[in-house]
Amino acid sequence: MELVVGIDIGGTKTKIGLVNKDGDSIVHDFFRTKEYPNIDDFILKIKAVVNQLIAKTTTNVSLLGVGIGAPNASSKKGTIENAANLVWKGSTPIVAKLKEHMNLPIKLMNDASAATLGEMLFGHAKGMQDFILITLGTGLGSGIVANGKLIDGFNGFAGELGHVDIATDGMRLTGLGVKGGLEAYVSATGLKRTIMYMLSIYMEDSIFRNIAYNDLHGEDITKAAEEGDFIAIKAFDYTCRILGKALANFTTFSQPEAFFLLGGLTSSDKWIFEGTKKYMEEYLLEIYKGDVKILPSGMHGKNAAISGAAALIWQDFKNK
Amino acid sequence: MELVVGIDIGGTKTKIGLVNKDGDSIVHDFFRTKEYPNIDDFILKIKAVVNQLIAKTTTNVSLLGVGIGAPNASSKKGTIENAANLVWKGSTPIVAKLKEHMNLPIKLMNDASAATLGEMLFGHAKGMQDFILITLGTGLGSGIVANGKLIDGFNGFAGELGHVDIATDGMRLTGLGVKGGLEAYVSATGLKRTIMYMLSIYMEDSIFRNIAYNDLHGEDITKAAEEGDFIAIKAFDYTCRILGKALANFTTFSQPEAFFLLGGLTSSDKWIFEGTKKYMEEYLLEIYKGDVKILPSGMHGKNAAISGAAALIWQDFKNK
Repeated sequence: MELVVGIDIGGTKTKIGLVNKDGDSIVHDFFRTKEYPNIDDFILKIKAVVNQLIAKTTTNVSLLGVGIGAPNASSKKGTIENAANLVWKGSTPIVAKLKEHMNLPIKLMNDASAATLGEMLFGHAKGMQDFILITLGTGLGSGIVANGKLIDGFNGFAGELGHVDIATDGMRLTGLGVKGGLEAYVSATGLKRTIMYMLSIYMEDSIFRNIAYNDLHGEDITKAAEEGDFIAIKAFDYTCRILGKALANFTTFSQPEAFFLLGGLTSSDKWIFEGTKKYMEEYLLEIYKGDVKILPSGMHGKNAAISGAAALIWQDFKNK
Repeated sequence: MELVVGIDIGGTKTKIGLVNKDGDSIVHDFFRTKEYPNIDDFILKIKAVVNQLIAKTTTNVSLLGVGIGAPNASSKKGTIENAANLVWKGSTPIVAKLKEHMNLPIKLMNDASAATLGEMLFGHAKGMQDFILITLGTGLGSGIVANGKLIDGFNGFAGELGHVDIATDGMRLTGLGVKGGLEAYVSATGLKRTIMYMLSIYMEDSIFRNIAYNDLHGEDITKAAEEGDFIAIKAFDYTCRILGKALANFTTFSQPEAFFLLGGLTSSDKWIFEGTKKYMEEYLLEIYKGDVKILPSGMHGKNAAISGAAALIWQDFKNK
């Protein structure tokens, strides 16, 4: 069976899977990224896990290549550059290092861009020429497709929409220090910050008056909103307004047919999709109104990060 | 000689030229758009002017097609939609109408997008895969190229960056009603409004205390700045800060190799380019710093709007 190695390098876990042509990870494993502060040890660990995964499969495996998704990755240079959440500092030539040990096509891409390719090959964006994927996790990632192709940009760093200044109170900084940057408002972290903000404005009762910032989790906020908590509902409304306005702004750029939302925060249709659609329509220019969809990612259920990384390689074989 | 008809439809003038493969308009003319409020009369006038231009040329002319640039044009539908400055309201099927009279390939595109194709075929963007053209006139137009292709968007309305909300005081509305929209600040009109704003803040002497808003012209402001006028210098600095910040924001989208600036306002290197570069670098994310150029358009001297419109057709022949 023809398979592609999909690797998702994250600040906490590095996930590896063998992915078939439908984007399903038929076998996968993970290890803790921080346990391998030396890049050469990390590469050897990857190689060992891949061999273990191959041994676990019951069929003959023919590997087509290795796709890697990582934060701050340059697809054009094959390097990870100063990623805030990773242990290796400076410019890490991960593709060149891995090539010393694996004689296969190896491609690297920003994790959100890889997830975008996954959406195009395996998810709900099949056949779409123009769409944007937004991933809502600890931060906000994005990947943009126009004319049927992912936008890489001059050095491979296109699609950092989490750091667009979005014209709100402007007091919050993103992880990269952008004042008023989108991900400081729209992300799991952003939603927690917004809970604090709402507690500062309103004096209504709320369960969040008894929970410290560090004990707050995204799921608690969704649950509280469903139970009618005033502060939680205000926080979601504020988040939806900012995201809706941001998507209306992004539309002036590439007029996507659809925005796809991926990540834990997006599991709630009621609290994220409905409000965001309403506000996006309010802010859209007349020429765009009614023509832009907001859809859930088709990668829920699949191992989105691993499948997305594998899409880097599968795209070359599926087009043939 | 093989030539392409380039037509630029503007609120005041409609310009028509015959354009050779180098983007030079070898013969051209114009008429006043408002004199043809009936679209059928307008189409007949275009046909008459084209015939006159052909008669003026001294060689045998072989027409390859007709390219049209217009505000609010949909390349995908071949229509002009509710353009604020044009006399025809609703959806005007200009391509279909013209086809009834001219048996040639006919293409329509947003005027700024057409200018962008012109920059790519005939100007300074030759060979660039990723760039953005910004036109600064009465308003602010834009065209975006990624992966070597112009971004059209789902319905052909991509690239309306004049209407991006840019996180400033947010009190000005653009012509389309966008609060805080870029073109309300960065355009000939925006600069005039900024002169008023500076007169409201500062009490220093200035020639602008003796000139009414309606008597103000962009060239006067450049001239005053060169003569050391305090208000003019403050106004350019404010404009450059907002444009620089906007370009830094746009970079997170498609990471262009260069921004090209076109239009009367951009003739002054000192008052627009230097300041905008300085502020853009200040606002750029670390991963982009030093890698994004701001360049003058290569279409100065050519009849940019006519050549850009002709590029719609020439791109199909030059690629062969």
